[in-house]
Amino acid sequence: MIQQLVKNLCLSLSLLATGAVAAQPVAQSPGGPPAGTNAASQPVLQVTMNQVRLEFSLDSKGTPLYQVSYGNQPVVLPSAMGFTLAGNDNFNSGFSIADSRQDSLNETWTTVWGANSKISNNYRQLSVQLIQAATQRKLNIVFRVFEDGVGFRYEFPRQPQLNHFIISEEHTAFRLTGDHKTFWIPGDHDSNEYTYTTSAISAIDNREMVAKSTEIAVRTAPDPKAVQTPLMMKTADGLYLNIHEAAQLNYPALQLHVDNSSFALTASLVPDTYNNKAYLQAPSRTPWRTILVSRDARAILASNTIVNLNDPSKVEDPSWIKPMKFVGVWWEMQTGVGTWALAGGKHSGNTANVKRYIDFAAANGIEGVLVEGWNTGWEDWFGTWKESPFDFVTPYPDFDVNGLRAYATSKGVQLIMHNETSGAVTNYERQMDTAFRFMQEHGYHAVKTGYVGRIIPRGERHDGQWMVQHYERVAAKAAQYQVMVDMHEPMRPSGQYRTYPNWLASEAARGNEFNAFSIGNPPEHETILPFTRLMGGPMDYTPGIFKLRGYNTGNPGLQVHTTLAKQLALYVTMYSPVQMAADLPENYAPHLDAFQFIREVPVDFERSIILEAEPGDYITIARKSKDKEEWCLGAITDENSRMAIVDLSFLPKGQKFQAVIYGDAANADWKDNPEAYVITRQAVDSKTKLKLVLAKGGGAAVTLRPVTK
Amino acid sequence: MIQQLVKNLCLSLSLLATGAVAAQPVAQSPGGPPAGTNAASQPVLQVTMNQVRLEFSLDSKGTPLYQVSYGNQPVVLPSAMGFTLAGNDNFNSGFSIADSRQDSLNETWTTVWGANSKISNNYRQLSVQLIQAATQRKLNIVFRVFEDGVGFRYEFPRQPQLNHFIISEEHTAFRLTGDHKTFWIPGDHDSNEYTYTTSAISAIDNREMVAKSTEIAVRTAPDPKAVQTPLMMKTADGLYLNIHEAAQLNYPALQLHVDNSSFALTASLVPDTYNNKAYLQAPSRTPWRTILVSRDARAILASNTIVNLNDPSKVEDPSWIKPMKFVGVWWEMQTGVGTWALAGGKHSGNTANVKRYIDFAAANGIEGVLVEGWNTGWEDWFGTWKESPFDFVTPYPDFDVNGLRAYATSKGVQLIMHNETSGAVTNYERQMDTAFRFMQEHGYHAVKTGYVGRIIPRGERHDGQWMVQHYERVAAKAAQYQVMVDMHEPMRPSGQYRTYPNWLASEAARGNEFNAFSIGNPPEHETILPFTRLMGGPMDYTPGIFKLRGYNTGNPGLQVHTTLAKQLALYVTMYSPVQMAADLPENYAPHLDAFQFIREVPVDFERSIILEAEPGDYITIARKSKDKEEWCLGAITDENSRMAIVDLSFLPKGQKFQAVIYGDAANADWKDNPEAYVITRQAVDSKTKLKLVLAKGGGAAVTLRPVTK
Repeated sequence: MIQQLVKNLCLSLSLLATGAVAAQPVAQSPGGPPAGTNAASQPVLQVTMNQVRLEFSLDSKGTPLYQVSYGNQPVVLPSAMGFTLAGNDNFNSGFSIADSRQDSLNETWTTVWGANSKISNNYRQLSVQLIQAATQRKLNIVFRVFEDGVGFRYEFPRQPQLNHFIISEEHTAFRLTGDHKTFWIPGDHDSNEYTYTTSAISAIDNREMVAKSTEIAVRTAPDPKAVQTPLMMKTADGLYLNIHEAAQLNYPALQLHVDNSSFALTASLVPDTYNNKAYLQAPSRTPWRTILVSRDARAILASNTIVNLNDPSKVEDPSWIKPMKFVGVWWEMQTGVGTWALAGGKHSGNTANVKRYIDFAAANGIEGVLVEGWNTGWEDWFGTWKESPFDFVTPYPDFDVNGLRAYATSKGVQLIMHNETSGAVTNYERQMDTAFRFMQEHGYHAVKTGYVGRIIPRGERHDGQWMVQHYERVAAKAAQYQVMVDMHEPMRPSGQYRTYPNWLASEAARGNEFNAFSIGNPPEHETILPFTRLMGGPMDYTPGIFKLRGYNTGNPGLQVHTTLAKQLALYVTMYSPVQMAADLPENYAPHLDAFQFIREVPVDFERSIILEAEPGDYITIARKSKDKEEWCLGAITDENSRMAIVDLSFLPKGQKFQAVIYGDAANADWKDNPEAYVITRQAVDSKTKLKLVLAKGGGAAVTLRPVTK
Repeated sequence: MIQQLVKNLCLSLSLLATGAVAAQPVAQSPGGPPAGTNAASQPVLQVTMNQVRLEFSLDSKGTPLYQVSYGNQPVVLPSAMGFTLAGNDNFNSGFSIADSRQDSLNETWTTVWGANSKISNNYRQLSVQLIQAATQRKLNIVFRVFEDGVGFRYEFPRQPQLNHFIISEEHTAFRLTGDHKTFWIPGDHDSNEYTYTTSAISAIDNREMVAKSTEIAVRTAPDPKAVQTPLMMKTADGLYLNIHEAAQLNYPALQLHVDNSSFALTASLVPDTYNNKAYLQAPSRTPWRTILVSRDARAILASNTIVNLNDPSKVEDPSWIKPMKFVGVWWEMQTGVGTWALAGGKHSGNTANVKRYIDFAAANGIEGVLVEGWNTGWEDWFGTWKESPFDFVTPYPDFDVNGLRAYATSKGVQLIMHNETSGAVTNYERQMDTAFRFMQEHGYHAVKTGYVGRIIPRGERHDGQWMVQHYERVAAKAAQYQVMVDMHEPMRPSGQYRTYPNWLASEAARGNEFNAFSIGNPPEHETILPFTRLMGGPMDYTPGIFKLRGYNTGNPGLQVHTTLAKQLALYVTMYSPVQMAADLPENYAPHLDAFQFIREVPVDFERSIILEAEPGDYITIARKSKDKEEWCLGAITDENSRMAIVDLSFLPKGQKFQAVIYGDAANADWKDNPEAYVITRQAVDSKTKLKLVLAKGGGAAVTLRPVTK
């Protein structure tokens, strides 16, 4: 890791004259300074990085205010900060600035795995020490300004007047400048598995979406005006904004309450049963609140600001962490072909069937086989809210733990453990040591965890502080046992994979699985996810469905809302270090030529280039293999067909490449002809403008290999 | 164990004529049949054992009704039974009797330890199978009638129409016949550590008591009319009643809501955060509801009905379970002489000090030494509601785990582990395996657990279902590691020690400790506890305080509200298999003649005889040692002085005994002269009427040993 910490870049405060901050006069509105007050009655502190400018001040009541602009354009108007602590204890006004300090960092760090092997972390930092005169309590706010946005966090230093305390409300506001276009899902405390709605801020209301999303088992969205982050937005004049958080640990998920008329967003933290938000002890700190901004949508996808704001890895020696592709019996269950449960005679997790998947993986160079439904308890696990649904160590009698381990090992394949908690987290926590010891003893190096259902401890929520602590405990415990983790139904990530690189991926959004059993995901879905859910880290989306219609035994009318070629492109457009080839071997068998792309596509890259991007419309990305001059490329579109013209100038000049293009057939169409694809080969070089014709709901996947002379 | 199960004693139903049940006409009142209905429109089932008669019927709406009488005297008027399930789902009316059956049992079982080595369990059982026509759901009610009372429980058989379900309310009522005298503490969901109020039912209101009991850290008593069980009562004409429960496992504590005017008590179960009472899955069953009745208060104390209603031991080989006396550094901390925490320079749990206690124990034949404050975390544990206050395996640097183990072993003494959770039960559950493994590896065979503070999972209560499950998990886990448990701040027991004989004792009431730091316990306190808290099982009351004034370094005015002789008598009147000699060695040193009684008093007996008893006034009990013709005797009184004339006719005829009487000095008085005692010797036999003069707040302890010729 290259680290060039330049401290005290500017010890003198950037004090601007009073009034210089107020970029435009604004009426009193939610999250803003009180009416009739001078918004900048105290000195203003300012940090600029290229186009991004952050200004901090206190209003006349001593409430912290920040604002963000891009070039000369305001992005976030002066917006309030602070807290109410338990007991209606004001911790958001009456402050004065005790001290401040500017630093900067320009480092490049090496990832354990990722879309890029090296990441530049270049920011200027402003640390403001506030003191609340009436209570003599201190609150620090730290801003980091990057070339693509701003992150800030609150820090509660060790102090006599503040030890254990409870956050009742966080008042952080984001006062936006207009009625931006947004891509949102409801601010649900238990689920992120909604389809996205594209609407103006003024039209945000989640009630209808929550009510109709009956395919989501647990929905808890008490505020009709609350939305999840990452919240992707586009202004009327073409500026792209993204609001999220970073390093969300020991703190509930940040959701945003929307004011439809003033366009102010305010922090809405997922509460516990007492409507408390976070139990903290000084010294402590909140996650970072992040605001990304660019005139180019591609810069949002390319941004590493969120991961940069996370702490470096806590895993001292990460050499055992290995990205991988995997197959599994899971799609059988999702589609009704098989069952998790033994009872009923369709148990997918039986030794013979698992061997079939091991054979398939071995034949195709796929590292892992996931077996769900291997342990007893699946006859009575869903929606029961019971305390102890599973024990994580007792296999069904038809699942031969030792025999399958030996068989998999002989084939060079590893089995992936599955720990579904059914939301009964007290039960899982009691047994985690036992569960991880079982993995260690039986050669499992990766586990998929799950949290389907209402949480126990009753009163806790999937996205609340207690569960966030739990997910971190799982990641830390797994690291201790050298086990990689793929969490389903946790809170959506915010770059924690830097700190816990064994936390390979999470679900935490609406995955491909919804196509298996519900109305599914609209064709635009995968063009939005990278701008929202994936901003915080990899998703186990489970692409690679080849049989796109007629797969659900109980509901033959269901279909996946993409073409087959788009399923391939998703391996590139949705980066994850752990990618499933989700379909059944028998569904791959007729299309082994197309399957070749899945065999070849890496799950770890040297670098990635966002070539085209527009949220809700299309994405085209190229990624270079590690240690090889080989590239892969994915292009996807929404419900509209599209011609992607891909400038290959990123290729090394003078080198000829063979492009193998896995594209939609001319008559392909997600709805009526989804499985029609063509594989073409084309010689290309850095001067080529590659034309990829994408069908409605379609895509293209491309491998680029140097032609040896 | 002798078990004589006589099945099907009476296969034919005891059907009485309609109307025979209504012992007296009653107006409609809470818990009773609806006004204007015929309370006995269906057949009546009846079971009688000696004086106790139980009758069961359905009212005209199909609501189950039971009544209890003693001789010809009604004790519980026809009272409703049943439930409301979640979703306002009626499960208390619309029933008819599908079947019923009578059985009986007359067995004698052998205790692992106890006040008696053999217990007779003799009852007649009525099992009623109800069916709710509208839902086709089944509910069974099982009554057991003993010669001293009635127990009944609900059973939810396996059935298609009822799988997982939630108890919203249990409607069990106890419609009493008059404005009885009661001995009550508030129905608090988190604490049983109140002083008792003696009042008529009509005067019960817990608000003042809850408000003023500031010495109790966590108080949660939302219903001013709720009281705890065991509820001890006395009718105007001298009948003693006791309402409690038995075998409370996987179910919240039963509290009683009191109607001040009708004298009806109704079940008030401790709720969770959703106001749900219990999450159950059929087949399952509730604890037993118990009603003890006698004209003789001594029969209440002698009753084994509650423990009999518990399941036999789950510990297959209990040979490792050893009752014991112990000393410890704990009173130092309670009185401010020392601290749990290392910081501050008064750490009691240091190696040198612990050796002092080991030496004292070894010199006095005391088996155990309890060390609290041995593990890190005590600098920040109380009232913080923090997730992970302790780890249960990391000693303070001045506590030498291995050295002390070796030293204790060399002296024939064992150390007792201490696991204080601070109420952070999620933290404890995560670490229980580790904690018990630590005990196993370091030679600890007993543990004192503690639950001081607000519970985590937040929203759960000390006496709610989830915590009750937890306490059982602790008992079961401890048994698995051959560790005995003494739980502080759990729910009050209801005979579970039969099922888990390694669960030696609990606190779960206001112990002697309150004398150390608060207004303390009034002189009558120990004359009430055996009729209330101790009905369910042993209490770790920590008697044996010899320095009764001036012990609290921060509050020298405090005093214990008993004489020294009464402290000795408590070892007999409050049976426990684990008894602390709670005071400091230096406070015992001047009184080693009196300490001789503590050395000699057993913690396990062949049999016990309740000689005198009146709740709130006095108790005299004699207990016979196991395998020896030696007896000990304890007599205590309340704030009034008293002459106890003890008929020793229980002694074997013709055998001379020497009585050593540890009595109050003539001028002793709990308030002004508590430490004045006299030790006298007297030759006695079965014809002797021993006169024991008890001072105000005083007592007497006696050993009786055969005189060899």
